[in-house]
Amino acid sequence: MKKFAVLLSGCGVYDGSEIQEAVFTLLSISENGASYQCFAPNIDQHHVINHLTGEEMNEKRNALTEAARIARGEIKDLSAYEAGDFDGLVIPGGFGAAKNLTKWAFEGPAGDINAEVKRSILDTINTNKPMAGLCMGPTVIAKALQGTSTKAELSVGTTTEASPYDIGAISQGMEAAGAKAVMKSIREIAIDKQHNIVSAPCYMMEGSIVDVRKNIDQAVKKLIELA
Amino acid sequence: MKKFAVLLSGCGVYDGSEIQEAVFTLLSISENGASYQCFAPNIDQHHVINHLTGEEMNEKRNALTEAARIARGEIKDLSAYEAGDFDGLVIPGGFGAAKNLTKWAFEGPAGDINAEVKRSILDTINTNKPMAGLCMGPTVIAKALQGTSTKAELSVGTTTEASPYDIGAISQGMEAAGAKAVMKSIREIAIDKQHNIVSAPCYMMEGSIVDVRKNIDQAVKKLIELA
Repeated sequence: MKKFAVLLSGCGVYDGSEIQEAVFTLLSISENGASYQCFAPNIDQHHVINHLTGEEMNEKRNALTEAARIARGEIKDLSAYEAGDFDGLVIPGGFGAAKNLTKWAFEGPAGDINAEVKRSILDTINTNKPMAGLCMGPTVIAKALQGTSTKAELSVGTTTEASPYDIGAISQGMEAAGAKAVMKSIREIAIDKQHNIVSAPCYMMEGSIVDVRKNIDQAVKKLIELA
Repeated sequence: MKKFAVLLSGCGVYDGSEIQEAVFTLLSISENGASYQCFAPNIDQHHVINHLTGEEMNEKRNALTEAARIARGEIKDLSAYEAGDFDGLVIPGGFGAAKNLTKWAFEGPAGDINAEVKRSILDTINTNKPMAGLCMGPTVIAKALQGTSTKAELSVGTTTEASPYDIGAISQGMEAAGAKAVMKSIREIAIDKQHNIVSAPCYMMEGSIVDVRKNIDQAVKKLIELA
């Protein structure tokens, strides 16, 4: 049975992992005959957002502790991740990817990436294991590869359909980080055959929960095929 | 398009709504051509559990604010729920159902039920709209109907397959509350045709994420059929 690591960043779209994307990732991995182990970095979240009002809350939460909610407690500190133990790595989206794993949400491609996150992605690439990045996940991969000779082809959404985000700016940021940004709709995935990286826009685009479920299933099926 | 209300109780299996069950509920409603509106009571959670360690944390969280994470912010205070606006009501599981919506986790059928939760369930029954209770959700329905003439037939899990919980005790509690408890495996749903109530054990039993997804899809399809 193939086994995949899933890198979470908290629990909730505005300050952690996008919950629906994360759950559909776990579901698709299982439905397609593979197993998973969730990981998250053992760090304070950048901040805590009240998901009802959108306002910042005056409290601290830990990305690993909160991500454990999605994983029903079955999660490990990212420092325990060894690429050789798995057949591939998936990074779901949510602002946690761009606030906790990197600082992309605040500083674009100039922002820092968490050292354990960078190590995990580079180890995965260096052991020739496939990866999947969903929604904001590809920006984390772009940051990890910044300054290396690996020019990955990664999805952003597309400017030809509705998105709550500035897809043009994210695309420019990805290119500035050294990646090749490719426009994809919520019905498509990007496949970098050279580096075995699958990516999908998911909630980067305006879409229904069913659209996101299907987009993730496409990406996970391809990931498993590449593994 | 049929529209269903989904009653959440926080965000996380040990102190709120079971996240995977809640997400699969929303997915199945959408996949089957209906729409949803999430609700949660605007109350402090009973407590906050660290999902990594299982220990109680010294902080306060609001059930509505936390449930908003699952709903991506699209959620309403349960006080705004009117049964007449919807084609039915779904209550996913998680300990939040038995800690925030009722106090079943601490006092069994003797524990209180939140007044808004009770009103919402009784209004749904009294307007002849169907309901679905998942996992611990049926205990909330049993509590709301306690002392009424409605003897609902509701699922617990089954004692013939593995469960992390004491199914016998939950079953006895349901009967003490005035319901008829029926044993169901994670591959089955209970259907109370007289009161239009569907119920499913889900993570009340030991099962995989795929088992839970299928069990919820069975229940939601039947709910939509009854609506």
